Amino acid sequence: MGSQDVKLVSFWVSPFAKRVEWALKLKGIDYEYVEKDIFNKSTLLLELNPVHKSVPVLVHAKNKPIGDSLIILEYIDETWNKQYPLLPHHPNERAHARFWANFAEQKLMDVAWVAMCSRGEEHEKALKLAREALEKIDDEIINGKKFFGGDNIGYLDLALGWISYWLPIWEEVGSMQIIDPLKCSAITEWMTNFLSHPLIKDTLPPRDKMLVYFHSRRETLSQAFQGWLKV
Amino acid sequence: MGSQDVKLVSFWVSPFAKRVEWALKLKGIDYEYVEKDIFNKSTLLLELNPVHKSVPVLVHAKNKPIGDSLIILEYIDETWNKQYPLLPHHPNERAHARFWANFAEQKLMDVAWVAMCSRGEEHEKALKLAREALEKIDDEIINGKKFFGGDNIGYLDLALGWISYWLPIWEEVGSMQIIDPLKCSAITEWMTNFLSHPLIKDTLPPRDKMLVYFHSRRETLSQAFQGWLKV
Repeated sequence: MGSQDVKLVSFWVSPFAKRVEWALKLKGIDYEYVEKDIFNKSTLLLELNPVHKSVPVLVHAKNKPIGDSLIILEYIDETWNKQYPLLPHHPNERAHARFWANFAEQKLMDVAWVAMCSRGEEHEKALKLAREALEKIDDEIINGKKFFGGDNIGYLDLALGWISYWLPIWEEVGSMQIIDPLKCSAITEWMTNFLSHPLIKDTLPPRDKMLVYFHSRRETLSQAFQGWLKV
Repeated sequence: MGSQDVKLVSFWVSPFAKRVEWALKLKGIDYEYVEKDIFNKSTLLLELNPVHKSVPVLVHAKNKPIGDSLIILEYIDETWNKQYPLLPHHPNERAHARFWANFAEQKLMDVAWVAMCSRGEEHEKALKLAREALEKIDDEIINGKKFFGGDNIGYLDLALGWISYWLPIWEEVGSMQIIDPLKCSAITEWMTNFLSHPLIKDTLPPRDKMLVYFHSRRETLSQAFQGWLKV
């Protein structure tokens, strides 16, 4: 597979784009990495992903470009289905991997982000919801396995990967604790396993640069989330 | 497939549960229908779907129950993969079907619901967003085909099915117009095709009963959405 066939449009600090990068590397697929500043929308990004105008976008040969990181993971798994399976084999296990990937996206990531950016009552509300969501993940999905995927990193590990590295940085920026090692011992153990994997370790953005970036995002967005959790 | 093997926990007016019902019928799978009042959470529902505590839930043989209607559609398509394919065959087309299913859920359904329930400024904002989202769907996904799935109803038709019947009822309840036949001519045509399909036509809940139900939901929720669209 020549690198001219696969192009990943990404942004260095995006946890969504990083999932796709990990998937391509796990499958051993050569690709061209195209860095795009999401705050300065390029013509290329608007053209490739006119609906969401966001990264990641995967362009494969002459096919229509694909946005939405979890959908790209499914595409990668279906297209290069001979090497390194990402989703489990059994439909029921596949359904549960998808369920928890969506759950983390909808019930943890958004509120963790609001908790980081907001202050006062909003912050407290969002923090409580984030902790509850993480405890549900901890309760449900690890059963003495090294990874959610079993012995190897799979789809759900990639989907939840941001919890291992982005979330602790958001905790630091927001001066808060979401991951309680006593209540989330399974997640804590998984984080260590995940971050120790050579492929993951070697592809993480620098922590100090991320801290600067997210501090700046927090300042910009700190007023935006008032009223956010009213409903 | 005996009906004892497949159980669908549903609620008569849920557009999410209806998708699953349609999928099971299209595949010709016998199932037991279990009606659950979502406002009066039964032990069964809490037990089967402890995370979201909502319908639909699909229980198949001794497998772990599955929640989340779009994930259930994937499960059904993977499990009974010999009859009536729901998702397209090509990974790229599958990705785009999933993309638009998610788009409609995240960018149209929520705002259309807020537009129905809210008044004043919130209502206007939500209405504008809903119209824009519907126009994007109209622009992108019909190319002279009878259904999104081509000649036959497929995954994306089931995912968007609520637009054909629930959305016009929400428009009536909210005294608003989201579907502009001039701007959304492709969607309008698709709605006619979809609602004419015998399997769809025969499984729709009674319109008058739905009007009463959604009027009542609007009254209950009318205060809840103030501030909702601030971000």
